[in-house]
Amino acid sequence: MLGSKIEIKDEFWKRYIDLIMTEMIPFQWNVLNDLEDIKIDKERDDANIPSEKSHAIENFKIAAGRTEGHHYGWLFQDSDVYKWLESAANVYKITKDDKLNDMMNEVVELIEEAQEDDGYLSTFYQIDAPELKFRKLYESHELYCAGHLMEAAVAHYQATGDERLINVVKKFVECIQNHFGSEKGKIKGADGHQEIELALVKLYEVTKDESYLKLSEWFLEIRGQDPDFYKKQLEENDDLGIDDKKPFQVNTVYHQAHKPVIEQTEAVGHAVRLVYMAAAMADVAYYTKNDKLFKASKRIWKNIVKKRLYITGGVGSTVHGEAFTFDYDLPNDTMYCETCAAIGLMFFAKAMMKNEVDAEYAHVMERALYNSVISGMALDGKHFFYVNPLEVNSESSQKDPGKSHVKSTRPSWFGCACCPPNIARTLTSLEKYLYSEKDDALYVNLFMDHSGTVPFNNQEVEVEQKVSFDDEGSLVLKVEAPNTLTLGIRVPTWAENLSIKQTGSDVDYEVVDGYAMVLVEETLTLKITFDVPVIMHQAHPRVRDDLGKVALQRGPFVYCMEETDNESDLHLMRLKDHIRAEKVSDSVLGSHVALKALGEKRVIDEEWNNALYRNYKEPVYEEKDLTFIPYHLWANRSVGEMMVWVVKK
Amino acid sequence: MLGSKIEIKDEFWKRYIDLIMTEMIPFQWNVLNDLEDIKIDKERDDANIPSEKSHAIENFKIAAGRTEGHHYGWLFQDSDVYKWLESAANVYKITKDDKLNDMMNEVVELIEEAQEDDGYLSTFYQIDAPELKFRKLYESHELYCAGHLMEAAVAHYQATGDERLINVVKKFVECIQNHFGSEKGKIKGADGHQEIELALVKLYEVTKDESYLKLSEWFLEIRGQDPDFYKKQLEENDDLGIDDKKPFQVNTVYHQAHKPVIEQTEAVGHAVRLVYMAAAMADVAYYTKNDKLFKASKRIWKNIVKKRLYITGGVGSTVHGEAFTFDYDLPNDTMYCETCAAIGLMFFAKAMMKNEVDAEYAHVMERALYNSVISGMALDGKHFFYVNPLEVNSESSQKDPGKSHVKSTRPSWFGCACCPPNIARTLTSLEKYLYSEKDDALYVNLFMDHSGTVPFNNQEVEVEQKVSFDDEGSLVLKVEAPNTLTLGIRVPTWAENLSIKQTGSDVDYEVVDGYAMVLVEETLTLKITFDVPVIMHQAHPRVRDDLGKVALQRGPFVYCMEETDNESDLHLMRLKDHIRAEKVSDSVLGSHVALKALGEKRVIDEEWNNALYRNYKEPVYEEKDLTFIPYHLWANRSVGEMMVWVVKK
Repeated sequence: MLGSKIEIKDEFWKRYIDLIMTEMIPFQWNVLNDLEDIKIDKERDDANIPSEKSHAIENFKIAAGRTEGHHYGWLFQDSDVYKWLESAANVYKITKDDKLNDMMNEVVELIEEAQEDDGYLSTFYQIDAPELKFRKLYESHELYCAGHLMEAAVAHYQATGDERLINVVKKFVECIQNHFGSEKGKIKGADGHQEIELALVKLYEVTKDESYLKLSEWFLEIRGQDPDFYKKQLEENDDLGIDDKKPFQVNTVYHQAHKPVIEQTEAVGHAVRLVYMAAAMADVAYYTKNDKLFKASKRIWKNIVKKRLYITGGVGSTVHGEAFTFDYDLPNDTMYCETCAAIGLMFFAKAMMKNEVDAEYAHVMERALYNSVISGMALDGKHFFYVNPLEVNSESSQKDPGKSHVKSTRPSWFGCACCPPNIARTLTSLEKYLYSEKDDALYVNLFMDHSGTVPFNNQEVEVEQKVSFDDEGSLVLKVEAPNTLTLGIRVPTWAENLSIKQTGSDVDYEVVDGYAMVLVEETLTLKITFDVPVIMHQAHPRVRDDLGKVALQRGPFVYCMEETDNESDLHLMRLKDHIRAEKVSDSVLGSHVALKALGEKRVIDEEWNNALYRNYKEPVYEEKDLTFIPYHLWANRSVGEMMVWVVKK
Repeated sequence: MLGSKIEIKDEFWKRYIDLIMTEMIPFQWNVLNDLEDIKIDKERDDANIPSEKSHAIENFKIAAGRTEGHHYGWLFQDSDVYKWLESAANVYKITKDDKLNDMMNEVVELIEEAQEDDGYLSTFYQIDAPELKFRKLYESHELYCAGHLMEAAVAHYQATGDERLINVVKKFVECIQNHFGSEKGKIKGADGHQEIELALVKLYEVTKDESYLKLSEWFLEIRGQDPDFYKKQLEENDDLGIDDKKPFQVNTVYHQAHKPVIEQTEAVGHAVRLVYMAAAMADVAYYTKNDKLFKASKRIWKNIVKKRLYITGGVGSTVHGEAFTFDYDLPNDTMYCETCAAIGLMFFAKAMMKNEVDAEYAHVMERALYNSVISGMALDGKHFFYVNPLEVNSESSQKDPGKSHVKSTRPSWFGCACCPPNIARTLTSLEKYLYSEKDDALYVNLFMDHSGTVPFNNQEVEVEQKVSFDDEGSLVLKVEAPNTLTLGIRVPTWAENLSIKQTGSDVDYEVVDGYAMVLVEETLTLKITFDVPVIMHQAHPRVRDDLGKVALQRGPFVYCMEETDNESDLHLMRLKDHIRAEKVSDSVLGSHVALKALGEKRVIDEEWNNALYRNYKEPVYEEKDLTFIPYHLWANRSVGEMMVWVVKK
């Protein structure tokens, strides 16, 4: 398959992409090579950080026999290297920077060298526990890391044309095929952390080798067939005396291995695992025409978007297991909403689009991207949220252990480094999310300035967008196709009075499945205009934590109040009316649209000085102007309170 | 000091006391002797239960050399036996039941036998770790158990006149005095769990031996002098190679050992430890006239009642460390509010009363007793809450791990058995909380039917109460004193239009520090009448979780709504007006006063069937009658939602 060749020119997104190129990639390189100390702020970082160094490259050097020593870090430390490589390849595709290519080559050679003759590659097990290879799948992350290696290989190949990593991966897959499968004597289970499933589809897309697709399907289908699979592996190790860890009951719901995936109806367990799995289900369903798999992925999708999705596009209602909980349980200040989970939700949406046309997939993808995903990264490119709360009170974060995971400021790099490199690889490959193809139509899903070509019907279509939604919304969309094509332009839920014009005259269009369908005959330049009103959302009344509250949105951006603009005690404020958008420029936040509104703040009268409780008196409020900023910009100026859902008078 | 000789005749309290006599004491006896299996419901009980048997008596038998084996259970398993003995003695004081006396004698003999020659007594360390005696104070509970033994000894002596246990305790204190103290070579630290401090005061009150008082004061004063004390003990054990546990940073705030107690200004750390410590501080301050200690205890008291106390009298805002958090942080559905902590708050209030006259102490004591304490016990006497929430939604308890400690039904006995026996010993000694003496006045603190004598000015005063607050409130109070005395009758915050009459004519009284002061010349029968209105409380606006909500109270009882009376989705309901008290009789709950009110319930319209969020629409409510029951009665009929703080329209 041909990839998109698109240059993102959007000021908003360039800012992020530049930060990744200039700050993250070099910094992470230094970290992986232990050239940079990982600064761990005990007050701010998670307690379960294994170390103050990465050792990730060193692990590969030991596995390759270049140096000696023990593995160090998480079981999935290798994936840091692979994710870096994927991001670096994405950046190289843009910059063609020789120095970056040298760095990538260094890593590629090291990976080649570290791979064993039979194709196996996982530095922890190679170095310190060869007897346990593929024998502790509930936690080993061997296939998870293999998946990230595949994604890196595909990105590297697409950026450089170099097939070396693809060959490493092919050899690794052979090794996996030799060990896993329905044949007698082979392992009948999948990795505890889904990832290889979606990566194998990417590998298939590049190589067209159907065995990769089959292997992915097999991993999806074997999952949960025997809910005791992980436990049995542990017991077997115990029987053989090769593992000193006592067998225990594995929480199979956490791994979505409690029942076969095609029987699963709800989003449960670890949120990242769930969305990665569901993305693979939809991907595989599309290519293999596996309808049961598609139906199951759609049930899970609907369960998320109708009952378990935060307005910011975040998922994962609890820190315990970083997991989904139950329908309408969406607490704003104790949730997890991991950056990686929002990214995984984008993968899931993108995979669903392959199967059917429904603008809801792109709506949700956009919601996640513009809010929960980019909230994960500070405007300095050096600090990152894993947890993206919708409400923060810094005293609670510091003094309530139940909220200690909810930070009111982005910690510096690392510890468990999953989220930052995930942001890096996603934001450097945005071109993959802009368009989709289905049933002989080309669909426009996201709106940002860019130009380039997208594959369609095995040909290339030239596209260009010039977007603005600061004042009135407008989108200039240029399409040049070798043949006639049907274009579906997503009608955002946040746009009103959409009009499509071509050289001054109205274009007739019909909205089908949320897309404005327009016929393109070779070349077409559309000028699309729309209003961008402020939307006041309310949540389903069963969402206890949002009752009586509203959340504001304008364009794709969800808004929040911060203490720095509104004083402390945000919970005492309530929104009245007169909400207006105002373009502002801030030395830290840059140019953005803020929302101003008329509100009220509850008065704490003097009688309260000496009382915790008193007989009821009608509360007194005083008028107060309220300021809202786009959610993703929060926590860039000062430490303080933040709140998305605000009481509505 | 002479003790009270009072018979509680109150129907309300007799029900509880009878349950303790007929159900708890015999049942717990069987449990302690492993004659009864501890039924552990994995779904409902805490996960950290060490075993399915008690082994507590068996531990003593092993220590006494009667049998052989290892210690089993918690490090503080001995205290189960002591608390049982204290409750049994309290009951024996009422019943003089021979069989109970035989059981007590059996235990007393066993304890005598288990005690070592040097006075030491702690079965775990005697049996399995003699080399670690007094060397792991942060967790050993040796002095904690010693404290409970002292309390049992005092109760047993007061009930039987038998001094055997007092002698055991005297010998144990000598042992402690030999090991702890400011002299060179002695241990300079206190137990990780405060208890011996308050127990030593009780021992002093009975024996008048001032060295017990001094030892208590020393334990209080040494606490926190060296915040590294516990850590250093662990390091020393490590150096000596006598402990296989690696030294680690002890959270000294949890143990209130982060700074000297006289410098402490806030209620922090484990809630039970804090209130036990503060009770001892106030007790010791009174007897030793240690003003610094009193001032510190008062600061802690004020911090609790003005900023960290639930309306139910519960304390401990977080399950993490079962601890206090910070000012105004009073979440209703994630807190701990341990039954034992509410009991400890009663101890604290009682000790404060010795130091100064202020009805606030009795107000809070009553609030804890009538709500959070008795909420701990089911009406069958066989099921117990450790955690007493103010809001429960059973789906959250089951599916949100962050709320798994909040049960929507009382688990059956045990696991960690601290709370049930604590309820037993407290409710069988209520006479100790009724009256207090200060500055030549006798104060009446609690109101319940009883008759008997209380000590006053080293003489006995005959007292009798006959109380009702079902309809109009009334209290007939009879006092017969050998000499003229000043009587202070607490004016409850929940009573209105109090009038005091003697044989038909009004009695003049002045309210001083919350007490109506009346002069008694030998014999006096007062008829006190008052209104018992429904009080609608609001919480300080900084209590985020109670904002816009009210809590109802009538008499000493805080009220709650239960699903069984009001349908599900309690959070969708709000209170309007027309609140009225209604005496009702229920087959399970018995006779009680319910509150009925006019309310509203938010309508979930059909449009919500397919949406999680939508553009704001003015919410629609329909009228709904609401029913409230006394909080302590909740969860006796069916599993379902419960809510104390209700939205006020």
